[in-house]
Amino acid sequence: MTSTDKKQTIIIGIDPGLNITGWGVIAMRSAGLTSIEHGIITTRTDIPFAERLNLLYQGLIKVLKRYTPDVAAVEKTFVNVNPTSALKLGMARGVVLLAPAQQKISVFEYAATQVKKTIVGVGHATKDQIAIMVQMLLPNAGVVRKDAADALAIAICHAHHQSTSYGRLATAAGSRR
Amino acid sequence: MTSTDKKQTIIIGIDPGLNITGWGVIAMRSAGLTSIEHGIITTRTDIPFAERLNLLYQGLIKVLKRYTPDVAAVEKTFVNVNPTSALKLGMARGVVLLAPAQQKISVFEYAATQVKKTIVGVGHATKDQIAIMVQMLLPNAGVVRKDAADALAIAICHAHHQSTSYGRLATAAGSRR
Repeated sequence: MTSTDKKQTIIIGIDPGLNITGWGVIAMRSAGLTSIEHGIITTRTDIPFAERLNLLYQGLIKVLKRYTPDVAAVEKTFVNVNPTSALKLGMARGVVLLAPAQQKISVFEYAATQVKKTIVGVGHATKDQIAIMVQMLLPNAGVVRKDAADALAIAICHAHHQSTSYGRLATAAGSRR
Repeated sequence: MTSTDKKQTIIIGIDPGLNITGWGVIAMRSAGLTSIEHGIITTRTDIPFAERLNLLYQGLIKVLKRYTPDVAAVEKTFVNVNPTSALKLGMARGVVLLAPAQQKISVFEYAATQVKKTIVGVGHATKDQIAIMVQMLLPNAGVVRKDAADALAIAICHAHHQSTSYGRLATAAGSRR
């Protein structure tokens, strides 16, 4: 892979969380998808929120600068938790959406059910099923932690939607809801 | 006021919101409190979240760079809304906590009841009562919009707690909850 390979798109998928944010970078080429790198960003729970968010932001910026993705795909959170958890998740999500926007990287959002349907074929797949399918779809990914597997699944979901020229419209409409 | 006036502390109060974020900058000197500037940052609702958060972040960074506050005080949100609203509020709050942390400005958090009690004397004061008291406490503030009044109230609350040497401890404990 060289920077002159114009036929590839680098996609980063991000699964936001204040404790653990998973990320996964893949390359989409005519030959198919390959994993580039994946990992997690964790923050200690015993420091103030502002510091935790700053650590998350710095961690993301570092990853974005290292792998210079063309696009970012973030899970559109379905809120089935209590308002206090939703607020915390929202804080992490705000930073996760901000970081790529800061780097002028387009951000696409996909609902969890959309991600599951793309990867496993059904909208109610379990985390284990997703992890297995991610390993099958990206055999070069090595050992993938669950949080990173979710992030890779989001990246794959975007690759699929981009290749069907459907992603941008669906996301644009979804963002306005 | 000059930069050699070491006896003053510049405080920015911020009231986070995705649609409207209020901010107010005050100076705390031995002679008392004075308003420096206040305003609001609004974001359009018809653009993607990532762009809205980026606009909010850029707006905040601009204010922080212009008024170079020593500390930031942010309202600790009491979540009495539905999870979807809490998620949106959380996203704005994440960015509002991140921006000063990025500028290496200490961030203090105060519960709404704490702010009200400091300004009006009771924890269940109305927005109108807060606005009136803010105008009385900062007579040089001019016409203050409600969202900016809340932000100034948070800044005043921090000034009060700092002068009683109580703020840092209370906040540090509060952040861990």
